[in-house]
Amino acid sequence: MFTFSPIGFVESPYKETSSIPRGLGAKHETEGVLEILREFEPGLADIEGFSHLYVLWAFDRADGFDLIAHPPTDEKRPHGVFSTRSPRRPNPIALTVVELLGRNGTSLRVRGVDMLDGTPILDIKPYLSSIPQEKLRRGLAEAELRKN
Amino acid sequence: MFTFSPIGFVESPYKETSSIPRGLGAKHETEGVLEILREFEPGLADIEGFSHLYVLWAFDRADGFDLIAHPPTDEKRPHGVFSTRSPRRPNPIALTVVELLGRNGTSLRVRGVDMLDGTPILDIKPYLSSIPQEKLRRGLAEAELRKN
Repeated sequence: MFTFSPIGFVESPYKETSSIPRGLGAKHETEGVLEILREFEPGLADIEGFSHLYVLWAFDRADGFDLIAHPPTDEKRPHGVFSTRSPRRPNPIALTVVELLGRNGTSLRVRGVDMLDGTPILDIKPYLSSIPQEKLRRGLAEAELRKN
Repeated sequence: MFTFSPIGFVESPYKETSSIPRGLGAKHETEGVLEILREFEPGLADIEGFSHLYVLWAFDRADGFDLIAHPPTDEKRPHGVFSTRSPRRPNPIALTVVELLGRNGTSLRVRGVDMLDGTPILDIKPYLSSIPQEKLRRGLAEAELRKN
């Protein structure tokens, strides 16, 4: 068992789940703020050097899990939960890649939020992907991503 | 406070931290197995459709944290922990992108492990990055990644 506490909270325009664009191919251009707790501010040093960040956060409003999920973009076909981004997963940890627009002390202004307002942040890491696009197969999301 | 339990464990050739290639630009081509607990097997349905997976795992052998970290590739210059992949972070959650080579029941054979043998796995998600390489700035890792 591992116990984690928030390092900060998301300020997002989304007040309810139904307003967040959903599905594996959804575009997320919405701006928001990652507001980090004052005690962790020294840990943000040098973060401005990265254009994109991984944000690990908790699906704090998810209740329980299903091993078989019904993605919103393909309702007719259920999928194993680990092939989806469903919030109803055994460990309700979420991952979002955001673009860092600017920092002001403990506030990171970012583009690409898909979290509800007030969502607890567990970790921030630099995004460094160097996997070429042409090497990726994206399973059930491929058709959705091509549409966008 | 959020409490998470392993969904499985990593089988890796790395028995000690010192044998794992370190640093933001390190290449990880090592093969290993993500052995998922039997009770979660239905959650793996359709995972074969993805070439790459996110693995969220616990730095279970890290003890405490530092807000200022000394990355192995740039020892002279300390960095904020959230600009690094240091295991000594407030919430010791790790993230690795692996290539899925094959699945046999609850065993996912993957390339790119950088975990110690026996590492607890917290979650698996499809990897879907569609951020073009030319849009990425990779801060202190840029020089390291160019070398590789």
